[in-house]
Amino acid sequence: MEEKAVTVHWEALKGFCKRVFLRLGVPPEEADVTAEVLVEADLRGIDSHGVARLRRYVRGLQVGQMVPRPKVTVVRETATTALLDGGGGLGPPIGRKGMQMAIEKAKETGVGFVAVRNSNHYGIAGYYAMMALEHELIGTSMTNADTLVVPTFGRKAILGTNPISVAVPAGRERPFVLDMATSAVPRGKIEVYHRSGEDLPLGWATDERGLPTTDADRVLKNLAERAGGGLLPLGGAGELMGGHKGYGLALLVDILCGALPGAGYADTIYPKGPDGRPLPANVGHFFGALRIDGFRPIEEFKATMDDLLRRLKDSPKAEGQQRIWVHGEKEFEMAEERRRRGIPLHPKVASELRVIAEELEVEYDLEGH
Amino acid sequence: MEEKAVTVHWEALKGFCKRVFLRLGVPPEEADVTAEVLVEADLRGIDSHGVARLRRYVRGLQVGQMVPRPKVTVVRETATTALLDGGGGLGPPIGRKGMQMAIEKAKETGVGFVAVRNSNHYGIAGYYAMMALEHELIGTSMTNADTLVVPTFGRKAILGTNPISVAVPAGRERPFVLDMATSAVPRGKIEVYHRSGEDLPLGWATDERGLPTTDADRVLKNLAERAGGGLLPLGGAGELMGGHKGYGLALLVDILCGALPGAGYADTIYPKGPDGRPLPANVGHFFGALRIDGFRPIEEFKATMDDLLRRLKDSPKAEGQQRIWVHGEKEFEMAEERRRRGIPLHPKVASELRVIAEELEVEYDLEGH
Repeated sequence: MEEKAVTVHWEALKGFCKRVFLRLGVPPEEADVTAEVLVEADLRGIDSHGVARLRRYVRGLQVGQMVPRPKVTVVRETATTALLDGGGGLGPPIGRKGMQMAIEKAKETGVGFVAVRNSNHYGIAGYYAMMALEHELIGTSMTNADTLVVPTFGRKAILGTNPISVAVPAGRERPFVLDMATSAVPRGKIEVYHRSGEDLPLGWATDERGLPTTDADRVLKNLAERAGGGLLPLGGAGELMGGHKGYGLALLVDILCGALPGAGYADTIYPKGPDGRPLPANVGHFFGALRIDGFRPIEEFKATMDDLLRRLKDSPKAEGQQRIWVHGEKEFEMAEERRRRGIPLHPKVASELRVIAEELEVEYDLEGH
Repeated sequence: MEEKAVTVHWEALKGFCKRVFLRLGVPPEEADVTAEVLVEADLRGIDSHGVARLRRYVRGLQVGQMVPRPKVTVVRETATTALLDGGGGLGPPIGRKGMQMAIEKAKETGVGFVAVRNSNHYGIAGYYAMMALEHELIGTSMTNADTLVVPTFGRKAILGTNPISVAVPAGRERPFVLDMATSAVPRGKIEVYHRSGEDLPLGWATDERGLPTTDADRVLKNLAERAGGGLLPLGGAGELMGGHKGYGLALLVDILCGALPGAGYADTIYPKGPDGRPLPANVGHFFGALRIDGFRPIEEFKATMDDLLRRLKDSPKAEGQQRIWVHGEKEFEMAEERRRRGIPLHPKVASELRVIAEELEVEYDLEGH
């Protein structure tokens, strides 16, 4: 029996996710922020990082990769920097704590950077960078991730899609919110093409020999079996279109999120015990905040931002195009619409949520409203 | 009469450039660092940013776009941040001063960021980021630049190739030195294809309608005449291959280098007077330095860096490939070779230098050794 698509209110969806986390032993505050980060991704239209991931969080908590009540510690701290150990807990509460510390430090000293080790998947990078906006700070957030990306001239996935987000306040214009994987596309995009049976554009992925391929099925199978190949960095295969630049950005993220905090890096992020069972993950994050008035009065800066963003948006369009976007705009518009009209869940995702509710004996109240 | 290729010693080349700057009224210390930054680019194999640019510096000083003896001022300063005004002077001395300040602040507080306005072309971004390495700091450097790059879905060049550099120390391995334009390629690459008559790969540039083109001649003419079109951001045209990400990085650089210091941005970087003559330029830069031991003991970090970089370099190669590089490696190897064997100058560049020497009555001692 096929599930029908279902549109749900964001608050109901957040409430459901929170109950799931509570059921799995996560304390209320941590359950709340984890639910919030997932639903925020759905609101912003980044469905691949929203409640479609709930199953992985549930499994992570069940198998011990994610610790429901971790001991989070401040390992080192100066006025401008800190190292946090997340104790293997859920990414969003640890991430929020890290970004909050960076923001506090920036308010006091002008700049704050916080690196995090022993964490897990933290959802959308933009959530944390955007926390800086209400304090009129520039915010940044990045994370390393499971190995899906092949370095330039390689044939083994050894880096993650390692996203970078930077949020910058503006005046009348919406803030600039860059939130980008450093791969050409995320794995979810390959899955979409796989479902539709379409050929991949050359430059998204390589086969197990490290050669560009259009075969989505082969790429996904290879990744599942760790048979070689994977996603290509931003810029594609080789150096002709700049693939070495995307590879460099992915490596930079692994340096700041893996090497700097002493977290996992490359293929050491998800350790396993001698029996093959997953141990608590060692994902790393890096958060930063910067005071604008260390350089310029904030109102002057915002006026310049408005002018800069408008110059781009008002500049002449390419033939056949109606609009030039600034980063974050699409997501803000989507979030406004989905807050009003509800979040449309893919039938498979809705079905998955219902199964999770049944398994965990959690109330499922998303449909039939 | 065609000039022959000529190989020159880097010290002789630097000495020549320095004499040129001295002749144009630049004080000795500033002449020295400007010559050093140009020759460092040639040593590292980034010929487009080396002495091939000397003519533009000479003209910039002659027409008043670059001020030989600028008044450089610290406009704002905190323990972690500063805003420098370069007074319209040469980029390299101002850039070195900005990066030195960022380094001093990082040594004292853990982090330092310095933004610069009223500067000029500063050469290779990597020169400044790498200054952090001898202090065992992570360094970053970026600059905005003349409008050559078309935003996603646009048809007017309104951003620069806006490079980003980040340098990170390692232990036994060479440091990681990312130094990348945020466009797919720099203009120099289009010029190389133009000279050879080859078609451009689709994804490097657009024509005046904003559509991808393979026609190098058309792109260069359009850029010279400001007729529309230009270079594409990293990721190419549209969003399919991630062009909006390269556009986002270019815009981020313009925010940090233009909007934050109150420098020029978008198409306001090179102002002209009412008579059409260039006024002192208003290029902006952004420099940063970060103490590693704010997070982790430096020796532990370096050992991890070595392991991370070796995991990449030792990972299996794509079919037909012999080597995986880490960023900076190619340039370090090139610099060692060119320091030993000399820098090969393109005949046109050597000829240009000789003409400059004659015009300015500066001793030309580069050939015949």
